[in-house]
Amino acid sequence: AGDATAGAAKSAVCSACHGQGGAQPIMPTYPRLAGQSEGYIEYAIKTYKSQERKGAQAALMYPMVQNLTDQDIADLAAYFSTQQ
Amino acid sequence: AGDATAGAAKSAVCSACHGQGGAQPIMPTYPRLAGQSEGYIEYAIKTYKSQERKGAQAALMYPMVQNLTDQDIADLAAYFSTQQ
Repeated sequence: AGDATAGAAKSAVCSACHGQGGAQPIMPTYPRLAGQSEGYIEYAIKTYKSQERKGAQAALMYPMVQNLTDQDIADLAAYFSTQQ
Repeated sequence: AGDATAGAAKSAVCSACHGQGGAQPIMPTYPRLAGQSEGYIEYAIKTYKSQERKGAQAALMYPMVQNLTDQDIADLAAYFSTQQ
């Protein structure tokens, strides 16, 4: 399972575009991550990483996630899903 | 601009999978829509409709959104973004 505290420590890159705690995306077309479902965040990152998910924003996300381990992904999902 | 009240009236199909007010998705891999950014919801629906966004869940979403007008999309985005 994911560890939200570990996720917070790994979230700097994500927060650059999604805002602190994923609550203030810097672009209207970027999603809020704060409070999103843990399972969806994990699913989204994994389908970006596997490139199963395609499109303009998927292409943007791929380099951000390509080196994340499954544990990193679980920790990030635990962290953002518990933000307000 | 979108009208949240009109959006509520058009949201039955969405709520079937994303839950009432988009707050309780029926599957862990389906996103919460409640409180998601209005711009992102609109962007996501439009890229599902245009099929620019591809992947397993995009294929699921396409038939759900293919007949939505821009006004429908704006209303749905206004509605779900204002849910808790």
